[in-house]
Amino acid sequence: MSLAVGVDLGGTHLRAALVETSAERPTPLHEERLPTGEDRVPERVADLIASAVGRVCTRAEGPVAGVGIGIAAMLRGQSGVVANAPNLGWREVDFRSLMRARLGPRVELYNDLKAIAWGEHRYGAGKGAPNVVCVYFGTGIGGGIVVGGELYYGAGNLAGEIGHTKVVTGGAARLCGCGQHGCIEAYAGGANLAARVRAELAAGAQSQALAFAGGEVAKVHPGHVDQAARAGDPYARRLWTEIAPLIGMALANACTLFNPNRLILGGGMWEGTPELRRLSEATLPELINAPTQETLTVCETSLGDLAGMLGAADLISR
Amino acid sequence: MSLAVGVDLGGTHLRAALVETSAERPTPLHEERLPTGEDRVPERVADLIASAVGRVCTRAEGPVAGVGIGIAAMLRGQSGVVANAPNLGWREVDFRSLMRARLGPRVELYNDLKAIAWGEHRYGAGKGAPNVVCVYFGTGIGGGIVVGGELYYGAGNLAGEIGHTKVVTGGAARLCGCGQHGCIEAYAGGANLAARVRAELAAGAQSQALAFAGGEVAKVHPGHVDQAARAGDPYARRLWTEIAPLIGMALANACTLFNPNRLILGGGMWEGTPELRRLSEATLPELINAPTQETLTVCETSLGDLAGMLGAADLISR
Repeated sequence: MSLAVGVDLGGTHLRAALVETSAERPTPLHEERLPTGEDRVPERVADLIASAVGRVCTRAEGPVAGVGIGIAAMLRGQSGVVANAPNLGWREVDFRSLMRARLGPRVELYNDLKAIAWGEHRYGAGKGAPNVVCVYFGTGIGGGIVVGGELYYGAGNLAGEIGHTKVVTGGAARLCGCGQHGCIEAYAGGANLAARVRAELAAGAQSQALAFAGGEVAKVHPGHVDQAARAGDPYARRLWTEIAPLIGMALANACTLFNPNRLILGGGMWEGTPELRRLSEATLPELINAPTQETLTVCETSLGDLAGMLGAADLISR
Repeated sequence: MSLAVGVDLGGTHLRAALVETSAERPTPLHEERLPTGEDRVPERVADLIASAVGRVCTRAEGPVAGVGIGIAAMLRGQSGVVANAPNLGWREVDFRSLMRARLGPRVELYNDLKAIAWGEHRYGAGKGAPNVVCVYFGTGIGGGIVVGGELYYGAGNLAGEIGHTKVVTGGAARLCGCGQHGCIEAYAGGANLAARVRAELAAGAQSQALAFAGGEVAKVHPGHVDQAARAGDPYARRLWTEIAPLIGMALANACTLFNPNRLILGGGMWEGTPELRRLSEATLPELINAPTQETLTVCETSLGDLAGMLGAADLISR
């Protein structure tokens, strides 16, 4: 029996779980969920994680291989330094050192999407597939890549950043949070999309999405637009008709370039916008290089919000 | 001293060379160049290759590890079957079997761009870089990918097909030879680009490119357009201004997704259109995910037309 701890560190909550990484499909043996805390001071968050890890480890019936931490952050190569974690408000934080000072040397940090992609490859929808592209649509859009059965990090630990691949060029390309224009995240990332819809509604656009949100512009989110699109609302249908081929293009290009066995799709926004999902997936046969489709399966994630914890626990065990 | 034979099989000519694969930067020890023959019947081409290989091998001063054949073709997985080789007019030809019947079991077929990418990684512009994307602009547009120091084939031996990544969606997207719309090859592949320019000139467009081609529409090629663009010709400048950001987008997205150490660019058209190259490369800083640029070097190929033969020879030796 191989044991390790997986941690999922988010902007509002953190979770830590003891995982039997050798299991066919592990469920967390013991799990802790805690608020990340108001201030999110790195030292304080490190204390919280260390104590949660301590508690789940005291219940381990065997040695624990280490602690893998998945974090929604851009990491500085393999240095363990968080270059930028917008949800936590961190920049250039040597968080691995903070954690190792508390828990010893067997601690590693992973970009959340890499941990998720690995979790799905190891235990979920990507099981048995040597080459996998996993894409999550949430507040932002991110991805992870498995090549020949190994997680692919890239030259600077940035492989899989599909959210910042460009789908529109020229002067009309929308501004993304990254500072560049035309990224798929600028069009279909949950935060950017909600901001756009709210701005358009505030400027007078008419849509049932507003009613579905209880009449409050500030509460409209992509799920409401999807509900409106399903009801035939012209604004919502026009928007989804604009965005679906862009999502299709970003996903298709990743498949054409990588020739993966599986394309795994998930994330909060993906689950909350079934009509956008349907329209996007419908564009794929015309956009993915035809021969590439012969060995490709497109599927949904299967581990839900456990993927990152399970993936991080397994990565630290290897 | 390790020896192997590399073959470069094109539509009009074939080349075979004895290569010392263990050399730092091998030059062909003995080389043969032959016309592929008018009819291009697979059995006849196999005979030609076998005799050329025989001749270069008789001069080997040691055992020959095998024969690696780079071919401009879509291969059917790792089966050695050529699914489609437009230049040779072949479809579903089990060419590896034909070659093995003549030369024994140590013969392998490689997609030409994979052989080139490997050659550049092993001996040329990609040396020392674990993760490489190599893109060739010629009659078509193709690419090869090296991941963690290994050639990446993908699920169906189709990885790196950047020419068929999409850069335009919607009704205005141009038709590609592959049958889909909006591929970068439809815009910037030498054959498609020449056909477009000729059609526009035939329809009355005015450009100095025509004069550079001696006044014959049918002889205009992208090099003439580039010459016109450098001379300030409005038609040529407009066309290059349309196409350069599309080339930039395809290249940038591959970098953002793969996070390679090096992006290696080459091919006949790339070399013959310096102004288009300059304009395309100038778009990259705004299109490649900014952090990804920190560990990326963009460079030109360095082995010229030897890359494929050297790459194929080394691949069969491994």
